[in-house]
Amino acid sequence: MSAIEDRIESLGYTLPEGATPLANYVPAVYVESAGLVFTSGHVPRNPDGSFVTGRLGADATIEEGYRAAGLTALGILASLKATLGDLDRVKRIAKVLCFVNSTPEFTDQPSVANGLSDLLVEVFGDAGRHARSAVGVAALPANVCVEVEVVVEVSP
Amino acid sequence: MSAIEDRIESLGYTLPEGATPLANYVPAVYVESAGLVFTSGHVPRNPDGSFVTGRLGADATIEEGYRAAGLTALGILASLKATLGDLDRVKRIAKVLCFVNSTPEFTDQPSVANGLSDLLVEVFGDAGRHARSAVGVAALPANVCVEVEVVVEVSP
Amino acid sequence: MSAIEDRIESLGYTLPEGATPLANYVPAVYVESAGLVFTSGHVPRNPDGSFVTGRLGADATIEEGYRAAGLTALGILASLKATLGDLDRVKRIAKVLCFVNSTPEFTDQPSVANGLSDLLVEVFGDAGRHARSAVGVAALPANVCVEVEVVVEVSP
Repeated sequence: MSAIEDRIESLGYTLPEGATPLANYVPAVYVESAGLVFTSGHVPRNPDGSFVTGRLGADATIEEGYRAAGLTALGILASLKATLGDLDRVKRIAKVLCFVNSTPEFTDQPSVANGLSDLLVEVFGDAGRHARSAVGVAALPANVCVEVEVVVEVSP
Repeated sequence: MSAIEDRIESLGYTLPEGATPLANYVPAVYVESAGLVFTSGHVPRNPDGSFVTGRLGADATIEEGYRAAGLTALGILASLKATLGDLDRVKRIAKVLCFVNSTPEFTDQPSVANGLSDLLVEVFGDAGRHARSAVGVAALPANVCVEVEVVVEVSP
Repeated sequence: MSAIEDRIESLGYTLPEGATPLANYVPAVYVESAGLVFTSGHVPRNPDGSFVTGRLGADATIEEGYRAAGLTALGILASLKATLGDLDRVKRIAKVLCFVNSTPEFTDQPSVANGLSDLLVEVFGDAGRHARSAVGVAALPANVCVEVEVVVEVSP
């Protein structure tokens, strides 16, 4: 087992099964010339595979959004593992774009996105410290709480 | 004619005129050091140049959104051709970010984005299979159905 | 002083203090293998540090949004300077993604984003001409007018 997967396990987290998109796209693409992986937007799933749904400002609390963002991070890590073979190849989480399912009145998207940022830094240390955008969107697929895409710098 | 343009024609598609932004930005930027092209957000246009407008969940159906996403893909291909000279230089469609003009109740953004994903795979085969995010936004310029930006890996 | 900072000053602009995120993320990440900097989403601040708030279509005018986008650009330049040491290392502003706090009825996001595009071209000339997306979102952190992230090509 790789050092990072060892760490994920010792933190008590479990990587979900890799995502299997039902259409003409893939969970992540590695661009060798740039040393970057671009991931698809990932959505939060409970351990039983069901989506974590709800809109911030309406029927989801900040705590629920924070937890959903953390679950989304685990799904992203699973996709990165499937794409790279080994999470130890992750050199840096470069960029995170977090879309938060929000009413127009909800303005604390950063507190939700922290669920993902905190988990990434827990797992990768300083290499998990990323540039980040967090914005509130009107609607997300299947009414999930958050959708997150990342750009990752990888070792060859 | 390049092999890809030949294929686009044989599929019955026509590339529109390249976009001409009216401000201090450009349709696409090629970053040689990374081997990547970043495109602007493109919007759907009918063959006569008019915008395809409408909001999913209100006055646009999924079928109309799907078709709009495909038209947007053609505009993106036109911009890539203008930037790269030849679409055969496209090595991989790496990343797609699809913003869908949505009411808060509409939650099937992926079915709309498929219009773009399907066309890209039709044209490029496996090289068209990309990482993708699809989210619902409150409003888009000129009330278009979708706005899409892509990151493309290119051959030198 | 670098040539670009000299130019910023001669245009009458002042770079704000660099952003200090209060969580596990950073203002910008430089990926050397790609020659790219990815910035966090930046938000507009008045010279006194307070946020520029308001929703387009409701309580913010296009002129206010345009000005807010320009102030956001200055914050982004401050973060790039902090990350790169010297703004003269900016080779090209490659990509801008501008989220505009919008009611569903507001459809002129490009006129708001122009505040940022115009300033970047004023400062960098043709190297400031970027690919750009501008979309309307339901809500932004602290109810700011805009949130903007950029990808920058840099010299080694």
